[in-house]
Amino acid sequence: MTFAATILTLYPEMFPGPLGVSLAGRALEQGKWSCDPVQVRDFATDKHRTVDDTPAGGGAGMVLKVDVLAAAVDHALAQQPDCPVLAMTPRGVPLTQERIRALAAGPGVTILCGRFEGFDERIFETRPVEQVSLGDIVLSGGEPAALALLDACIRLLPGVMGAASSGAEESFEEGLLEYPHYTRPNEWEGRTIPEVLRSGDHAKIAAWRKQRSEEDTRLRRPDLWERYGNARGRPASGAQREMKEPDQ
Amino acid sequence: MTFAATILTLYPEMFPGPLGVSLAGRALEQGKWSCDPVQVRDFATDKHRTVDDTPAGGGAGMVLKVDVLAAAVDHALAQQPDCPVLAMTPRGVPLTQERIRALAAGPGVTILCGRFEGFDERIFETRPVEQVSLGDIVLSGGEPAALALLDACIRLLPGVMGAASSGAEESFEEGLLEYPHYTRPNEWEGRTIPEVLRSGDHAKIAAWRKQRSEEDTRLRRPDLWERYGNARGRPASGAQREMKEPDQ
Repeated sequence: MTFAATILTLYPEMFPGPLGVSLAGRALEQGKWSCDPVQVRDFATDKHRTVDDTPAGGGAGMVLKVDVLAAAVDHALAQQPDCPVLAMTPRGVPLTQERIRALAAGPGVTILCGRFEGFDERIFETRPVEQVSLGDIVLSGGEPAALALLDACIRLLPGVMGAASSGAEESFEEGLLEYPHYTRPNEWEGRTIPEVLRSGDHAKIAAWRKQRSEEDTRLRRPDLWERYGNARGRPASGAQREMKEPDQ
Repeated sequence: MTFAATILTLYPEMFPGPLGVSLAGRALEQGKWSCDPVQVRDFATDKHRTVDDTPAGGGAGMVLKVDVLAAAVDHALAQQPDCPVLAMTPRGVPLTQERIRALAAGPGVTILCGRFEGFDERIFETRPVEQVSLGDIVLSGGEPAALALLDACIRLLPGVMGAASSGAEESFEEGLLEYPHYTRPNEWEGRTIPEVLRSGDHAKIAAWRKQRSEEDTRLRRPDLWERYGNARGRPASGAQREMKEPDQ
């Protein structure tokens, strides 16, 4: 089955862009996903093909008009009625790897990209458009965020990464950061690969990796660590003590 | 001054990519930033130009070799000694708009993009490479994240957005989400623009926008709301009550 990516944008020439090479590019050639950028301007109704207007209440910048946006969304919903419509906006729900997995398991995704100051809010009141955020930074438009979202989905499609890398053992898959990696040479500028990784003892290696995952998550991302603990039905504050107890 | 973007990557053809059009593309033509993608493979030392090897301790995928990475980073540091070196990795510190502002105010940035399973950890032990994360999703490589990071920086460079849009009134700039936008038509599918925005009363409009910023942040992003409260020296839990009190 082909994962259908529809992108509603003022810059269709940005797609597939970087997704046309490497892993995503090969998957595109193999028909594992399709890339359909749609020019939002085509849904403007006046002779100037206007897509934006000044913000109600004043202020800098321009706002994308709800009538144009709605026509573009309606077009996408008619073409791909089963694909969720996501708008990339810093006001949205932060994307998670869990959400990416759910999207990748579905028929595709329609992504609405903003530019200028943003969308007329009524698009969210009148159409089934989910607001999602890539991270707590502000982009010039939704397009770079859409590229990242699609890249994250595409690598999870069946057959894209190959059987060897299922993606099961990586950051966020268990709510933790991934453990650190090492490869040859064994010694480099006086630093050696941790001995346990060269022991050949698979149980010990797995235990070391789990411990490092937990430790790095706790130190680097207390927010993730808190959620990880909660998901396991134990408070993650006071986690340091708990980490030393055997897993239940 | 030109903001110098150096990207250490196995896919230099991905750059400038989407940053070659629209706002970032015009800024590139105007010399407001420079884009220098560097092929990491050029720093391999064997005749096969090997950049990766199997992970110590076993497991799927391949790990980027520390000697090759270090040579690439050393090259970038020799060329741009004053630019911070950032590695895009889900194990990194989440990017914030504050960090983007700091980067954009500096001479440029060098971005190290991973592929495969990731970097040999020793690159971070032996070189001044800061690990940053775009969001809690896993990409096929650092390139889409680098594009987003650069886009966020470029729009803040002097003269890129124009005087009208300073970027001061937008999501995260005060630690809050931005308020919602509206534009003509006033009524659309039975939904009207909030009356206050059509009142012409600038103080009322500013108050409404501040209230919506706070309310949306509290409802959608309790994590940001908590930090916002803390930054103001008052507990943000119990925030609902505080919001009704006059600002101090």
